[in-house]
Amino acid sequence: MAEQYVLISGTALEDYAWRMLQGAGVPAERARLVARSLVEANLRGVDSHGVQLLNFYIEHMRLKCMDLETEGHVVSEAGGCMVYSGGNGIGQIVSNAACDHAIRLAKEHGVSLVTVRDSNHFGAAAFWTQKIARADLIGIAMCNATPLVPPWQGKEPRFGTNPICMALPGAAEKSWLLDMATTTVAMGKIFKASFSGEPSIPQGWAYDSEGVPTTDTANAIKGMPMPLGGYKGSGLAFLVEILVAVLSGGAMSTEVGGVRIRTRPMRCGQAFLGIDVARYIPVEEFEQRMDHLVQLVKATPPAAGYDEVLVAGEPEWRNARKRGAEGIPLSAGVWKELAKTASTVDVKPPEVQAVTLE
Amino acid sequence: MAEQYVLISGTALEDYAWRMLQGAGVPAERARLVARSLVEANLRGVDSHGVQLLNFYIEHMRLKCMDLETEGHVVSEAGGCMVYSGGNGIGQIVSNAACDHAIRLAKEHGVSLVTVRDSNHFGAAAFWTQKIARADLIGIAMCNATPLVPPWQGKEPRFGTNPICMALPGAAEKSWLLDMATTTVAMGKIFKASFSGEPSIPQGWAYDSEGVPTTDTANAIKGMPMPLGGYKGSGLAFLVEILVAVLSGGAMSTEVGGVRIRTRPMRCGQAFLGIDVARYIPVEEFEQRMDHLVQLVKATPPAAGYDEVLVAGEPEWRNARKRGAEGIPLSAGVWKELAKTASTVDVKPPEVQAVTLE
Repeated sequence: MAEQYVLISGTALEDYAWRMLQGAGVPAERARLVARSLVEANLRGVDSHGVQLLNFYIEHMRLKCMDLETEGHVVSEAGGCMVYSGGNGIGQIVSNAACDHAIRLAKEHGVSLVTVRDSNHFGAAAFWTQKIARADLIGIAMCNATPLVPPWQGKEPRFGTNPICMALPGAAEKSWLLDMATTTVAMGKIFKASFSGEPSIPQGWAYDSEGVPTTDTANAIKGMPMPLGGYKGSGLAFLVEILVAVLSGGAMSTEVGGVRIRTRPMRCGQAFLGIDVARYIPVEEFEQRMDHLVQLVKATPPAAGYDEVLVAGEPEWRNARKRGAEGIPLSAGVWKELAKTASTVDVKPPEVQAVTLE
Repeated sequence: MAEQYVLISGTALEDYAWRMLQGAGVPAERARLVARSLVEANLRGVDSHGVQLLNFYIEHMRLKCMDLETEGHVVSEAGGCMVYSGGNGIGQIVSNAACDHAIRLAKEHGVSLVTVRDSNHFGAAAFWTQKIARADLIGIAMCNATPLVPPWQGKEPRFGTNPICMALPGAAEKSWLLDMATTTVAMGKIFKASFSGEPSIPQGWAYDSEGVPTTDTANAIKGMPMPLGGYKGSGLAFLVEILVAVLSGGAMSTEVGGVRIRTRPMRCGQAFLGIDVARYIPVEEFEQRMDHLVQLVKATPPAAGYDEVLVAGEPEWRNARKRGAEGIPLSAGVWKELAKTASTVDVKPPEVQAVTLE
C-alpha cells in the first residue's frame, strides 16, 4: 500500500527537535542531547523511539510532569555499585549522567552496575549502551516501563516491554548490537498491522483483553503484547524489573507511569552495566574474535525463504547508512502530529519534501 | 499414557551417583559435589540435567576426554574481572572454583564477572547461581554448549541452547529463580513428544532439517530447536556466546564439542556474575521488595484456561518439596541406562521400588 512520507535529513530533523525542546523550556545543551538521541533512533530505522516521542515528552514537560532542571543525584556509591536517583529529570539527561558513572566505575573496578530510580523515558536503549561501548567497555542497559504486558498465564498488565540491550567496544560496535524488548514484538508492530488494514497478525504476538492468544488484529489492539516466546519472556521481564527497580528502591510493575499518562510522574528505572574488556583480553583481540564469530554465523547456509543470515544490529546499521545518505522518511501522520506539538511551543517546522513510498 | 518409573529418595540417588563417579576415578569429595549437583536437578524436576547425564559424563571420563585431577586455574584477575581456565576439568569442579572467585571478587569490588574457558558440562545453571546467591549476592550464570540451534534465518547449527540463569539472595531465593535456555523449549521436550507418540508439537518449538519451522514431531526430531521467539532468541544466544567465549578466549560456536561427542574435549565456557546486593539496599529490604513484586504478579487475574499465575522457579520449588518428601520418579528407561553405565565402573544399583505413573 502506498503511503505518504516526508523526507528530511538527520541534521534538519535534529535541529527541529532541538528547537522544540528549547521551546518547551529545556536548556540548549540538554535539548541537543535529547534531540540527538531521538534522531539517532530514526536514523537506525527504530522510528518507535524517534522524534514521534516528542509529542509525549513535550506534553509532559508542558504539564510540568518532569523536572527540566535536574540531572538527578548519586544516592550511594560503593565499589562498582551505584544507586542513582533521577529526581524525575528528563530520561536522557539522567541516563547520560548515570552512564558516565557506570563508565567511571567500570574503569575503576572492572565491572560496574548503576541502577537508576525515579527517571523518565530514555529513548532507545542502544543510544546508552553505545555511549558505554565507546569507552571500550561492553555496555548493557535495561529499563522498566509502563505496564502493558501480562505475566505468563495472567490477563492484566504487570510488566513493561522491559528491554535488554548490549553493545560492544571498538569495531565490534558496528558488527553486533542487541536491543530487544522482552515481548515477541513491540506494540508498534501490532499498531502498524492495524493501520495497514491487515486483518491478522502472526501467532505469538499478542493476547486479546482476556489474556487469550489471538491472531486477530482488532482483538490484539484491544489486548496486550505477548512475552517473548511465552513464560521465558515473562522471566526476562522480571529479571529486568529486579535489577532496575527492586535493587534501586524505585517504582516497580504497576507503580510505573507512562509517556501517555499525564497525571503523575513516570518514575521508571534504568540499569547500566559496564564491563572493562581490556581486563579480560586486549580490545583488538576481542574485536578480531567478534569478527570471527560474526563471520561464522553469517556463513550459515540460509534457510528456505531467506537469502542471507543477519546478526543483531545489522538491519539497523544498514538503515543508518541509507538514511544518513538519503534522509529519514517520516510518515505524513507523524509529521503532522509533530507540527501540532511544535505549534504548542511556538516552533515552525522546517521545509520538507513530500514523497510517496510503497 | 501410563509409564513405568522407579521411585528413589534424593539421598539414595546421590549415593548411587557418588559411587559411580568414584568408580570412574573421581576423588570422593569431588564426586560428592558432582553427584549433588545432578540430584538437585532431579529434585527440582529438571530431569534433563539430572543423573541421566552420568551416562555421558562417565563415558567421557572412561575415554579420558576429561581431566579428573584439575580444578582449573586463574588466567588473569583484575578488579572484579577474571579469566579462568577449566583446563578440561570436570565442569562442576571447575564451576565450583570459578563461583568461589566470583563471590570473592563481588565482595571485594561490588560486582564481578568471571568468564571460564576450556570447561565441561556444569549440570544445571541454577546450582551455581544458588551457590552465589547464598553469599548474599545476586548470581547470574550463563554457558555456551554444543551447537544445535541455527541462527535466525539459517539452517545449520551455530549456537548451543546457551542458557541464562539468575538467582537471588536470602528468602528471595525461594520466591524467584530464572533458569532458561535461549531456545523456545529444550530439545528434551521435543524428544518427549516423540517418545510419547505425539504426532505434532506447538508452533515455534522447532525447525525441520532445512531450517523451515515445523509442527511435525518426526521432522522436528531430525531438525533443530528454534531460538526463543525467533530472532531475539538468536540475539540472546549470541550475547551469551560473547560473555562466555569471546571474552574468555575460549571455544565458540562450532568449536564447542559436546557430551555426546567422544572424539574431542567439550571445551565449553561459562560465565558467573555476582552483584553485592547490600551495596545497593539492605538484603532484608531487598527480600521484602521482591516479596511485594512476586505478590503483585501472582495477584494478576489468571487468563482463560489457567487457575493461577506462576513466577519463574515456582514449579521447581513445588517439585523439590514433593520429591524431597516422596522421592524422585525416574523413568524405567533412564534407570536401565544408568545401571548399564554403573556396570562399566563395577557399581551395583540400589534397591528401588517400581511404580506406574499416569
